[in-house]
Amino acid sequence: MPVMTEVLEASLLKKSRGVPDSRVSPCSASSPLLAAAEPLPKEIPLEALKKTVLPSPAPALSPVVVEITNSCGGGGSGDEHGHPRKFVMGRNMHGNCLQITEPELNDKETGEKEAYMSAVLAQYKEILVEKTKFHLGYPYNLDFNYGALAELQHFSINNLGDPFIESNYGVHSRQFEVGVLDWFAHLWELEKDEYWGYITNCGTEGNLHGILVGREVLPDGILYASRDSHYSVFKAARMYRMEAVKVDTLLSGEINCDDFRKKLTDRKDKPAILNINVGTTVKGAVDDLDLVIQILKEVGYTEDRFYIHIDGALFGLMIPFVKRAPKVSFKKPIGSVSVSGHKFMGCPMPCGVQITRMKHINMLSRNVEYLASRDATIMGSRNGHAPIFLWYTLNHKGYRGFQKEVQRCIRNAHYLTDCLREANFGVMLNELSSTVVFERPQSEALILKWQLACQGKIAHAVIMPSVTVEKLDAFVVELIQARNAFSADGNVRIQCIVEEVGANNCACSLHRGARVNSWTKDLGMDGVHMETES
Amino acid sequence: MPVMTEVLEASLLKKSRGVPDSRVSPCSASSPLLAAAEPLPKEIPLEALKKTVLPSPAPALSPVVVEITNSCGGGGSGDEHGHPRKFVMGRNMHGNCLQITEPELNDKETGEKEAYMSAVLAQYKEILVEKTKFHLGYPYNLDFNYGALAELQHFSINNLGDPFIESNYGVHSRQFEVGVLDWFAHLWELEKDEYWGYITNCGTEGNLHGILVGREVLPDGILYASRDSHYSVFKAARMYRMEAVKVDTLLSGEINCDDFRKKLTDRKDKPAILNINVGTTVKGAVDDLDLVIQILKEVGYTEDRFYIHIDGALFGLMIPFVKRAPKVSFKKPIGSVSVSGHKFMGCPMPCGVQITRMKHINMLSRNVEYLASRDATIMGSRNGHAPIFLWYTLNHKGYRGFQKEVQRCIRNAHYLTDCLREANFGVMLNELSSTVVFERPQSEALILKWQLACQGKIAHAVIMPSVTVEKLDAFVVELIQARNAFSADGNVRIQCIVEEVGANNCACSLHRGARVNSWTKDLGMDGVHMETES
Repeated sequence: MPVMTEVLEASLLKKSRGVPDSRVSPCSASSPLLAAAEPLPKEIPLEALKKTVLPSPAPALSPVVVEITNSCGGGGSGDEHGHPRKFVMGRNMHGNCLQITEPELNDKETGEKEAYMSAVLAQYKEILVEKTKFHLGYPYNLDFNYGALAELQHFSINNLGDPFIESNYGVHSRQFEVGVLDWFAHLWELEKDEYWGYITNCGTEGNLHGILVGREVLPDGILYASRDSHYSVFKAARMYRMEAVKVDTLLSGEINCDDFRKKLTDRKDKPAILNINVGTTVKGAVDDLDLVIQILKEVGYTEDRFYIHIDGALFGLMIPFVKRAPKVSFKKPIGSVSVSGHKFMGCPMPCGVQITRMKHINMLSRNVEYLASRDATIMGSRNGHAPIFLWYTLNHKGYRGFQKEVQRCIRNAHYLTDCLREANFGVMLNELSSTVVFERPQSEALILKWQLACQGKIAHAVIMPSVTVEKLDAFVVELIQARNAFSADGNVRIQCIVEEVGANNCACSLHRGARVNSWTKDLGMDGVHMETES
Repeated sequence: MPVMTEVLEASLLKKSRGVPDSRVSPCSASSPLLAAAEPLPKEIPLEALKKTVLPSPAPALSPVVVEITNSCGGGGSGDEHGHPRKFVMGRNMHGNCLQITEPELNDKETGEKEAYMSAVLAQYKEILVEKTKFHLGYPYNLDFNYGALAELQHFSINNLGDPFIESNYGVHSRQFEVGVLDWFAHLWELEKDEYWGYITNCGTEGNLHGILVGREVLPDGILYASRDSHYSVFKAARMYRMEAVKVDTLLSGEINCDDFRKKLTDRKDKPAILNINVGTTVKGAVDDLDLVIQILKEVGYTEDRFYIHIDGALFGLMIPFVKRAPKVSFKKPIGSVSVSGHKFMGCPMPCGVQITRMKHINMLSRNVEYLASRDATIMGSRNGHAPIFLWYTLNHKGYRGFQKEVQRCIRNAHYLTDCLREANFGVMLNELSSTVVFERPQSEALILKWQLACQGKIAHAVIMPSVTVEKLDAFVVELIQARNAFSADGNVRIQCIVEEVGANNCACSLHRGARVNSWTKDLGMDGVHMETES
């Protein structure tokens, strides 16, 4: 686009000539509340002018990191176990935010503001391209093309209220939303007239909704969830004033069913509300749903005394396409399932799909006349664009498309695991998962560049359809280089992560011997179908 | 765009020739969980083929409306007073949803699926254009042009976690978000180092956050809110297991401070958490913040024993630009303010701005290592596009632009009020508001066409920048026509809405005499500046 480039160049040219930016920052105005008759403030403090409003070209490469502990950061908790723990926080954004400036009266004539904004946006897009290229740590599929939907951005699409009951507000996308919900209800084996659901803003909203439904069904129920559950699960318990019990996990990250049985038995006079993970956040572990249900029954729980919410944020959409994987199905006594839309499917904005039983939702909903609809969602106004993105992707890819992508992701996850193992890194890959857990790199610059999510001594890479073998190769090379750079005396220092991944997967000098060559069997490579496609 | 048109025509042509749609609906597959080796189901039930997947051209004009009461609709409440009340719900969406169909293996070659989807989207866009044209009932400014931001749709922008602490995920827009937050903190007079905030998904999230902060600050506090508060306020109390007290309202929709004083005094041993409306949903009323604070002090509440959340969903951004309007300011003892971004500002998707005091947020936040950030928001993943839209609008319009728009809206609201009054409709306009309340039309078709929000005997039109005088003229003509059509014997039937709007504003035969010519004074016309611009 030549116009954009010209504008950008013009703006930068002006900048390099030292022309002062004469825009008034609202922060410099003496009174913010401008009544109709009052003139705009004329004084502009020098500090405001000196600040450049363009984002720095590559801020992530020179991060200002802040180390915080339990005692600072304000009332925050420590780690999940309640112990204080130090960890590196991202830098404070206040230093380089893009201040909003009051337009000049002659802006339309000079085109100055337009040029400034175009320049900001052009630079921002460059950063986005760069950041999208180097991304491994979060489970977001960045590979999508919604060009056909670009024009929808002209409309304020809002599915306020219930997806199934049309509101008086006409600019909605319920016909797409219900299509998507039908697809998922069918995937999880619940009949059309027996399910209710909606498209949420994110995985957290799904968990907040599922657990709220559980609490409304069983008001004095205790929430059980493994330590490795997403932080939103315990947040929900706190918000909803529910008693919550943290259950231990196995090394894999799965819920420890022995510990669950014990804790459940101790509290068996109270109903149980369970959060079951289908793909934990850090290790991608899948809780054993069938065993959990069996334990509930053995301890004496009838189906009216427990409620199971399935947090399938990432893996909820992958697992149906993997042979031998445990099945998520409403034919089992579960109450709700949530999955994220911006993760495996890919979507410009976060969103999720929530499916629950119709009979449960009646405990939660209220009819709202103002909406001419029902209030059974957490949010009121709801993004009407997200359902169209999901509808578009599901239609395009279908079951067959997802199946292929899941296979490629799991194959690539095995590829990365192989490479890291060969390069002598501690590494673990859960059966059927595409989340590769490995030693946390010592280089913070590398963590930021590849946007790795870290916890304690481990980091992970989540292999999404947007992650190619080429990207993984480049990553492994940089990882090795960074490790070498930190080895002052030529001896490569390998962290012991035995507590996080077990002796079979730790590469430190003490545990290296335990690493057997038959690891592919342990990791269930025979459970998935491999294709030769790259 | 010729290409789009051709594709649409080709698809419709094929349809008219009776070519059957051979796509497999997932709902017809016998097993939804397709493991790698299983073939796709071949059988396609006839019912699936018979269903047209394109939305009907103008569904809102022939609505299937369902009347429900307290007893049906499943566990729903009645009206806000706890009494059962009948009201018309929107139609069930399941009938005309857009089913997702499995792609054919040769779709890429035939282009059939692409043509189908283009046709659906083209028809959908037509509906959106039509629906956007006739919209009066909800406070959404549909007049925006974000063409410059179209390319951002290629990126998965996610501001997960805290806006001020950069997460490891690099594809974010925090630099824009913090710029927007600074602007609002300044508007509401809170220093940079004393505020915390974030961009939410909608007004409901703002209320959920504000009330949660209040509860964390005052754990045994009672929530007080007027009957006319948004439904999310009482939903919050239910979610958070808080004691909630509904306070009566005046005819205008403002909180009844006498009733508040009485109810507060009765419970003065407990701390108070208040929701104060700056623009109620139905009548656009502004609660008297200063009087509420005065009463709290008179009843003996020190500032550490109450928390005030301001729900400024619509009017929070309009009120600063209206002379003589009560001031929303953190120089007063308030805890948080929320405003919607998709309402007066206009945004393709719902969003909102939440500002609170830094000292309060520390009660709520937890540090989450996985994010390398802090968890103090309701949602985890957060839409990174919305902040850029808001940043773009604020930069473009500035204080001066908003001021002009607010003036035009209030002027047009007075214009509509005048027209309706002259045509002998019962009508009310609150001082400083742009929400015009009037007799609910008898024609459901008209309500749906103009997308009016209704409650009991009244409806309202919210005059946003996208509502022109021409649109209002067309609306009034149709309203009069519809009323005449319902007058079988030539006698126009005017509903008595004295309970909703008072004798001064009711047009029924009993109260018509009370309507005085000096109504403009009552409505505070001298409080706003009028311009001659249209």
